[in-house]
Amino acid sequence: MSPLPSVSYSITIRLEFAARSAAVSDITGRIERHGGNVTALDVSASGPERMRADVTVLTAGHDHAMEVVEDLKGIEGVELGKVSDRTFLAHLGGKLKIESKVPIRHRDDLSMVYTPGVARVVKAIAENPDDARRLTIKRNTVAVVTDGTAILGLGDLGPLAAMPVMEGKAALFKRFAGIDAFPICLDAHSVDEIVSHVKAIAPVFAGINLEDISAPRCFEIEDRLRDELDIPVFHDDQHGTAIVVVGALRNALRVVEKDIASARIVLSGAGAAGTAILRLLRAAGARDIVVTDVDGIIHGSREQLEGRLPWIAEVTNPRGLTGTLHDAIEDADVFIGVSAGNILTAQDVTTMADRSIVFAMANPTPEIDPAEAAQHAEVVATGRSDFANQINNVLAFPGVFRGLLDAHATRVSDRMLLAAANALADVVTAEELNPTYIVPSVFNEGVTKAVASAVEQVAREDAGTVDTITGAMPAVYADEITLEG
Amino acid sequence: MSPLPSVSYSITIRLEFAARSAAVSDITGRIERHGGNVTALDVSASGPERMRADVTVLTAGHDHAMEVVEDLKGIEGVELGKVSDRTFLAHLGGKLKIESKVPIRHRDDLSMVYTPGVARVVKAIAENPDDARRLTIKRNTVAVVTDGTAILGLGDLGPLAAMPVMEGKAALFKRFAGIDAFPICLDAHSVDEIVSHVKAIAPVFAGINLEDISAPRCFEIEDRLRDELDIPVFHDDQHGTAIVVVGALRNALRVVEKDIASARIVLSGAGAAGTAILRLLRAAGARDIVVTDVDGIIHGSREQLEGRLPWIAEVTNPRGLTGTLHDAIEDADVFIGVSAGNILTAQDVTTMADRSIVFAMANPTPEIDPAEAAQHAEVVATGRSDFANQINNVLAFPGVFRGLLDAHATRVSDRMLLAAANALADVVTAEELNPTYIVPSVFNEGVTKAVASAVEQVAREDAGTVDTITGAMPAVYADEITLEG
Repeated sequence: MSPLPSVSYSITIRLEFAARSAAVSDITGRIERHGGNVTALDVSASGPERMRADVTVLTAGHDHAMEVVEDLKGIEGVELGKVSDRTFLAHLGGKLKIESKVPIRHRDDLSMVYTPGVARVVKAIAENPDDARRLTIKRNTVAVVTDGTAILGLGDLGPLAAMPVMEGKAALFKRFAGIDAFPICLDAHSVDEIVSHVKAIAPVFAGINLEDISAPRCFEIEDRLRDELDIPVFHDDQHGTAIVVVGALRNALRVVEKDIASARIVLSGAGAAGTAILRLLRAAGARDIVVTDVDGIIHGSREQLEGRLPWIAEVTNPRGLTGTLHDAIEDADVFIGVSAGNILTAQDVTTMADRSIVFAMANPTPEIDPAEAAQHAEVVATGRSDFANQINNVLAFPGVFRGLLDAHATRVSDRMLLAAANALADVVTAEELNPTYIVPSVFNEGVTKAVASAVEQVAREDAGTVDTITGAMPAVYADEITLEG
Repeated sequence: MSPLPSVSYSITIRLEFAARSAAVSDITGRIERHGGNVTALDVSASGPERMRADVTVLTAGHDHAMEVVEDLKGIEGVELGKVSDRTFLAHLGGKLKIESKVPIRHRDDLSMVYTPGVARVVKAIAENPDDARRLTIKRNTVAVVTDGTAILGLGDLGPLAAMPVMEGKAALFKRFAGIDAFPICLDAHSVDEIVSHVKAIAPVFAGINLEDISAPRCFEIEDRLRDELDIPVFHDDQHGTAIVVVGALRNALRVVEKDIASARIVLSGAGAAGTAILRLLRAAGARDIVVTDVDGIIHGSREQLEGRLPWIAEVTNPRGLTGTLHDAIEDADVFIGVSAGNILTAQDVTTMADRSIVFAMANPTPEIDPAEAAQHAEVVATGRSDFANQINNVLAFPGVFRGLLDAHATRVSDRMLLAAANALADVVTAEELNPTYIVPSVFNEGVTKAVASAVEQVAREDAGTVDTITGAMPAVYADEITLEG
């Protein structure tokens, strides 16, 4: 597929041109003929003979944008000014700000927020460390931690380059779950170092969201942090993806009227996301899963099984298949791809069982063009926003952390992840459900609430608490702080 | 001095009482007679026979507050409800929040703030790491780092208990300098560990403010971080205090018409603050400084000089004094105390030179009661907010960091600190200057601006740059991001 014009490559071009009636249509027409998509034209100055306007254009990429600009030079009387880029403009100065919740207007405010008043709050926490969850930002604050080794699909670009992603993630935490999240981009690489740094900064936070850390290091880092910390640790690339995939699959299976326990599922990709999806599929009741990687089907007699592969071989492939992805896919009910672009052919899909399901989530190029897959499969999903059924982690992580924080959870369990997946699936009502609508929109207000509530419920059951404190600050809190208490 | 009622111990008492004309004055009169200070009375419910009101009272401390409450029970017909504490209420849920600067309203916004648009910003920073200062929060973000080993005057209470102070500091950074500051409270103790953790988190920040780390570890931590990081590192307990002391001293010397080069200065305290004050006094031209610690005057032939003491012995005490603080103080023009309460007597002050200056900054009890000192000394300053001439770090650190960030500084120099001290002193005009006004109010809008501008100027000279980029985001920035650039 050749890329379509998108807001990711939106530019704003400043133009000056002769004030004649056809001037604007000449310009917009020229842009449209070159494949650009004009979304706004703001006249910023006008005179009897000349006008100045800022034209905003969606383009298909950097080269296309340059072509569109170049082409405008061909119009007589048009002078080009600055060309700016909306995505970069949105990032100028960073995407987060930190504000004081308490006004500091005069000396009395200072005395309460800082010394000497703050000393009493310090002493209260020293005496009862649990009070940090009431009297500090720990209550509602999550660290978004990376070492920048697996940024999006771009690889190891280091902690500085990871910042725009982690800031964006923090912005999503606030937008979708009211959580204060802060980016921690670590200049560190070994598992030992990363574990040590995250443990050291943990006092400030009520949860750790690991992000874009390369496999297999991410597994050990997560495992060790979960063992050694008393706050929940969640690697979104694994579990966020797994929750949305399993939730979406539950709805897709409803559409095709199949049962997860008997469905034949092929999972392409045994990395971070693949491993987590496998775990959650099993927890959800899937029994016939075949996992493939770059070397084909994973089975017990394959050579050189390392890392998590022996475990995968042990718990999957009940019919003892061998061979390639093409062998695995025959008669399969479900294909789930978190691997590489263009590895599944249309021909492969025709060999699948009737009413098949294809989730092609490799980024930026899916395992198969979703339009081609849809020729044969009944339900198709991708990670892309320009196709139906987008598998987007934003559907999971905000609600998961909201639930964990509200429950004052100290750990994450598979039961919580499964509850989140089921809650997400249930947001789509029976009336709404169809092959092109198996997951709700990320802007559906009910998503975070449903996921949070499900996770909080399980967390409280796990902890054996019946505490009803919620993440929002209810008015009743004012009464909790008493001299007598 | 017995403590006065203050906002630090402000309580709000809910009362129900008979609706009779003298009821309110009975209550407030009773409180005032018991030494409480009624600052507000809000009637929250009223009926024909009973009323309910919330009475806010400044008290002198926890015990006094309990007495005031207890005493109210003695009034007939008065029923006590909840008693809440304003300082604790101000801390509920923590004092900071993190917000997205970019709205996330629909899919287009998502595509720019997060994937796929963010990928281009990531690539831009990977290619040119300096762009992190333009395109991420690094531009304006400072870490407030502690290990909780020297919290205020309270000692080693650990990283959790340190949070209210670090959050308060961050709130002050925003209020006084528009800087986004985030608390990093480290669960770590050795110098090596702390240095390693701070280096690891440094990519996100444009500066490191060390806070409440015990001496002598704080010296080595700061020295090593300054060597190993490419962003400025500033230990506020040392340098913030030193800047304000030296700025205040410059004005005090103006008042008493003496010259710093010939003034005899006694500095009591050789810890973090004392050492930094000594360095900056020397940089400011002081020549006759005598330092005392718990063992008396520091001189070269004193036994067991360890840590920084040999250096202190070498660069101070030109007249070779020996003995105690009482010996040192005779004929001194200036006493600067950052040591312990009540170690200087009124008798000591009478032995000082004419027109003497006393800065008694030990916390919470000064080296000498400032009222007593003022009987003999011409200028007296303390760290307390209930006396004239408060030496408050808020006068320094916001402006220092604003200047460092605006200059994109990579290090802090003594020249910058001295420039900050002089700029702070100059905020007080010749017309304003008098023995009780040697430093401006912390709420004086000109302070941060003056200090920032002085620090930025020196930082640019040090760096040899003529860059005029400032911390605020000028409109011209929009034009800097171009496809052609």
